[in-house]
Amino acid sequence: MLTIVLLGTGNVAHHLFGAINSSSSARVIQVFGRSDKRLKDFNQSTSVTSSTTTIADADLYLIAVKDDAITAVSTMLKGKKGLVAHTSGTVPITNLRTGRRAVFYPLQTFTRDIPVDFSQIPICLEAESEEDFQLLEVLAETLSQTVCRMGSAQRLQLHLAAVFVNNFTNYLYYLAQEICKEREVNFELLHPLILETANKIRFLPPKKAQTGPARRQDANTIQKHLEMLESPEHQKIYEVMSHAIQELYEKEL
Amino acid sequence: MLTIVLLGTGNVAHHLFGAINSSSSARVIQVFGRSDKRLKDFNQSTSVTSSTTTIADADLYLIAVKDDAITAVSTMLKGKKGLVAHTSGTVPITNLRTGRRAVFYPLQTFTRDIPVDFSQIPICLEAESEEDFQLLEVLAETLSQTVCRMGSAQRLQLHLAAVFVNNFTNYLYYLAQEICKEREVNFELLHPLILETANKIRFLPPKKAQTGPARRQDANTIQKHLEMLESPEHQKIYEVMSHAIQELYEKEL
Repeated sequence: MLTIVLLGTGNVAHHLFGAINSSSSARVIQVFGRSDKRLKDFNQSTSVTSSTTTIADADLYLIAVKDDAITAVSTMLKGKKGLVAHTSGTVPITNLRTGRRAVFYPLQTFTRDIPVDFSQIPICLEAESEEDFQLLEVLAETLSQTVCRMGSAQRLQLHLAAVFVNNFTNYLYYLAQEICKEREVNFELLHPLILETANKIRFLPPKKAQTGPARRQDANTIQKHLEMLESPEHQKIYEVMSHAIQELYEKEL
Repeated sequence: MLTIVLLGTGNVAHHLFGAINSSSSARVIQVFGRSDKRLKDFNQSTSVTSSTTTIADADLYLIAVKDDAITAVSTMLKGKKGLVAHTSGTVPITNLRTGRRAVFYPLQTFTRDIPVDFSQIPICLEAESEEDFQLLEVLAETLSQTVCRMGSAQRLQLHLAAVFVNNFTNYLYYLAQEICKEREVNFELLHPLILETANKIRFLPPKKAQTGPARRQDANTIQKHLEMLESPEHQKIYEVMSHAIQELYEKEL
């Protein structure tokens, strides 16, 4: 049984905690956090601490805190023998200030009260020795069907791509909701389209799945849409996106 | 049994044909199209014609052709007694050149070989008389769980919002794939994140679901990402989207 100390009490920590404790091969023996209030969510199922001097000995320390706090938290673990892994997509492995260093990055957007199926979440691993990699791999494979090895540069690139498909896409959903509001159209009517758009790329590369006025070089509809948009910000995004799509397909018409 | 002549042989026509013929209350008695080759896909299950003089009499004529061909196709139906409905999100009902006019707009992205569950697709209806509306409503309700009445202006607005969540979102998927390629990262790793991002808005409004460096006003990460992006086009989209997100949340920090 792999013993784990989890450092952090946010969304990632919550979902990791649940997934690890549902597995039979690992156990979170302690959760460390600075907020006693937040630690209360964990203290019925494991021991908790907010003191840096009482962190337990464990095989693995999983740091699930904000990116800019990772180095400081790792410093607290300097004397520990166990492997220390952070869970961030953007922070290099070298930001950890400990002897044995690794990264355990679950590629997903976590929200507190929305359950996720961890088995569907890719976990990207990095370690500095083969032995440490294997320790992480065993854990990751009990949690997820998709486990891959990836260096810090590749992980950073993947995280950048994730910003486009997660952060920017979500913002487009927000804009669509605002556009619906203007004429009291029910935004929920768009849910099936949103899901189908996301689902389709499992069968068709996005470049082939592209449709719409910009794809067809339909300048009339683009002009009409720009006139319909009330906010200059919305117009700008419509223009930039349409222009980029038009350029991509220009040669193909 | 409602009799229908379907005009068009593209993706929308294909999926409509399949859905109508699976229902027990309506039947496509004829498909009209200009291409004999494309009509072959239909002629095993119904009669087909490419001649404007042999279009059958029916209760309903569904026009599923490109937007800019709708008026011309409707002109062919001038002498018919049945109701004429087009299936476009953008074309006003008044573009039809027939006596009884309507719109039957299924809000979804249709791809030829990817099956869709029609019962999940919202159908937006418009008609000029209550009787005609009810005729369409009966048909729509046998095909879909979500049927709504909507005027041309509202439908146009909904279609504009659909461009954001479908066309632009798909283009972001494409960009993410390109970004992955640059460092030989497997784009498929992003599929679960893409699906979860789409799924999440069923439980959380997009404004609440927003995460990422722009949401956090994290200028360092934004700068780092801009430096990582190799294409000026990608940089521009990153900048415009991040700027818009930063503005939206500026006051809330």
